[in-house]
Amino acid sequence: MAVRVTPTRLADGRELFYFDDSPAYASGAKTRRLDDPRPLVDRAEPFVDRQTGQTLNPSPPEMRFDNLTGEWISMASSRMERTFEPAADSCPLCPAHPGGDYQDGEIPDTDYDVVVFENRFPSYWRLPGQDIHTEHHPGGEELWRQRPAAGRCEVICFSPDHTGQMATMPTTRMRTIIDAWADRTRALQQIDGIVQVYPFENRGAEVGVTLPHPHGQIYGFPNVTPRTAAMLHQAAAYERATGRHLLADTVAAEAAGPRLVAESAHWLAYVPYAARWPVEMHLAPRRDHLDLTTVTTEERADLAQLYPRLLRGLDRFFVDPDGHPIALPYVSGWHQAPVDSPARHLGRLHLQLFSIRRAPGKLKYLAGSESGMGAWVNDTTPERIADRLRAVLKQADDLTAVAP
Amino acid sequence: MAVRVTPTRLADGRELFYFDDSPAYASGAKTRRLDDPRPLVDRAEPFVDRQTGQTLNPSPPEMRFDNLTGEWISMASSRMERTFEPAADSCPLCPAHPGGDYQDGEIPDTDYDVVVFENRFPSYWRLPGQDIHTEHHPGGEELWRQRPAAGRCEVICFSPDHTGQMATMPTTRMRTIIDAWADRTRALQQIDGIVQVYPFENRGAEVGVTLPHPHGQIYGFPNVTPRTAAMLHQAAAYERATGRHLLADTVAAEAAGPRLVAESAHWLAYVPYAARWPVEMHLAPRRDHLDLTTVTTEERADLAQLYPRLLRGLDRFFVDPDGHPIALPYVSGWHQAPVDSPARHLGRLHLQLFSIRRAPGKLKYLAGSESGMGAWVNDTTPERIADRLRAVLKQADDLTAVAP
Repeated sequence: MAVRVTPTRLADGRELFYFDDSPAYASGAKTRRLDDPRPLVDRAEPFVDRQTGQTLNPSPPEMRFDNLTGEWISMASSRMERTFEPAADSCPLCPAHPGGDYQDGEIPDTDYDVVVFENRFPSYWRLPGQDIHTEHHPGGEELWRQRPAAGRCEVICFSPDHTGQMATMPTTRMRTIIDAWADRTRALQQIDGIVQVYPFENRGAEVGVTLPHPHGQIYGFPNVTPRTAAMLHQAAAYERATGRHLLADTVAAEAAGPRLVAESAHWLAYVPYAARWPVEMHLAPRRDHLDLTTVTTEERADLAQLYPRLLRGLDRFFVDPDGHPIALPYVSGWHQAPVDSPARHLGRLHLQLFSIRRAPGKLKYLAGSESGMGAWVNDTTPERIADRLRAVLKQADDLTAVAP
Repeated sequence: MAVRVTPTRLADGRELFYFDDSPAYASGAKTRRLDDPRPLVDRAEPFVDRQTGQTLNPSPPEMRFDNLTGEWISMASSRMERTFEPAADSCPLCPAHPGGDYQDGEIPDTDYDVVVFENRFPSYWRLPGQDIHTEHHPGGEELWRQRPAAGRCEVICFSPDHTGQMATMPTTRMRTIIDAWADRTRALQQIDGIVQVYPFENRGAEVGVTLPHPHGQIYGFPNVTPRTAAMLHQAAAYERATGRHLLADTVAAEAAGPRLVAESAHWLAYVPYAARWPVEMHLAPRRDHLDLTTVTTEERADLAQLYPRLLRGLDRFFVDPDGHPIALPYVSGWHQAPVDSPARHLGRLHLQLFSIRRAPGKLKYLAGSESGMGAWVNDTTPERIADRLRAVLKQADDLTAVAP
């Protein structure tokens, strides 16, 4: 696989990386966008927006320690100043229009295969040279802890095709996406202060997605996230009690159980024993990996076949009254072991995909029990989810087999 | 305060409690509803629904231990069999229509002040005589732990008036509601296997509420919920390090700080230092209380004044383009110390109110970062929230002062 990685910078200083897999591809003419003087997210001086006349003064985000729960909360108030609202016919994630004068797109080249760039309105970022390691106590109050939210937020466009879908992605392009996830994981892991890398995709207006262009995000967190911390805590207790690896044992138990949905030479897809979402599926490698960077060529090729196949099944999970499949809104993200953590060896790579849709036309709302108390109630059982997933996966496979 | 508590049972065996405060009140004629043979939620035999002919076979819910996160997840698949969809003009929470033949209402009497009853489709319940304490390992797999979700779910109607609002509740009625919360807290604490009582209100279609009639819920959890467990964990570490009480110290620090929103003789309202929601407010007593049961008559009277006043302010937090207030969708719930826990003394009563609305017409979605990783990003700061809350509270106070 010869993926060409081409790094560049946008006019406002943000980094952008092309991941190209098409042999005949030439990165194409550039539009004026590269020279468009938009606000520099990584400079401290106020910037006056050319279009609105509004002064933007992005200050770097901070994190506060929630002493009630022990979690760090990022406060990215500069995101409130978002003025960017693209016109309906101007997708900021499409390649630049050749010769066009649309100025609000993100990608300056007129073609790309897969591209990754720094988010213009990130939840985590830092100023150049900023001290990112010192904790502060606002007002001198020892109870209040504050530190810079010095991570990094990137956007990944999966395809130049505005109407493309992960589910129907050609295997070659899916391989490029996997390579880009792994490449950016390695790169972000090497940035000072970043301890965990999370490539994920939000799909569907139901989870707040406003741009239909196929894309995902890659977060470099400056801390071990609460879910990961909980997993490492559980895994450490299990290791002390049994000398064994919790996540590896869990995958092995699921592989032998009634919730296995699909398997390939190198990967296993299953509904977890204690699934909390109306639809939830985990996808894990047979071999132990801490993160995507060590996944082999063969394992990547296998994943590039399996993952879109699973998505085709998931998009048939719910059907409307006429029997037509309803595209599933979902969150799909890679859990990877944190770096610089003594518990790193307790992590294990897996993808978690879940949906808030619980029926056609009905969503699961996180209200008092879940949002107030963290107490989850699932109105179905993991075995029913697995039964349905196996059935719709077979339907999708049959359709693919007869496709012209 | 002479609140009369009248216990009774519905025809399907569920308990119902009237909390009446109006001296002239007589509980009124009963309609046929009390004798309506609806499915018994607490019996094991299948029940055939009279209207649909569908067989309902409610099996009690189970909880599964999520060994990745250490949390118990309730699986209430009998809720999937909900057939109850009231016609638009038939609110099931209104008092019975005198002489009417509407059969789907929940309250058999033709009037009430405040009423509490067991939820017909509960997330937590048990069969009579069920062994609720034994854990099972499905398939003999030690990794999988399962036990009955043997808590209790109650509904509380705040007013017989279908269009009533907590924000404009007369002080007398608000007192009755507080008494009902405290009374049910004490009662549920005494049920075998219930360790934590959570009175809460979900308000607004945006958080999934389908019945506009003013009502809330009271959950008796069979376990210490994840948020409470996290608080007790933090409080225990703080006690070991300082010998002091984390939640009491936190309230004291907020009382002296820039995020205090309102105070009364016995209560303090503030935006917490690390607020994670676009709108979030905590309300805590000045004196240490573990739960509502020990809150005194004076403290209850004070709360009955303050809480509706705060809600009137919150309902002015966002305004539409014409300057008209937008009713705030919210979750508001009482955090109370668990019973039967060695860490009970580390708890401290407080109400947490939060909203997913982040702007007029815009909601905060919990997508990859929050739902996948538990990593929260707030696009504003707690100080901005507090500034706005103080301003709108003053507006609401001014309006109330000039009201006829």
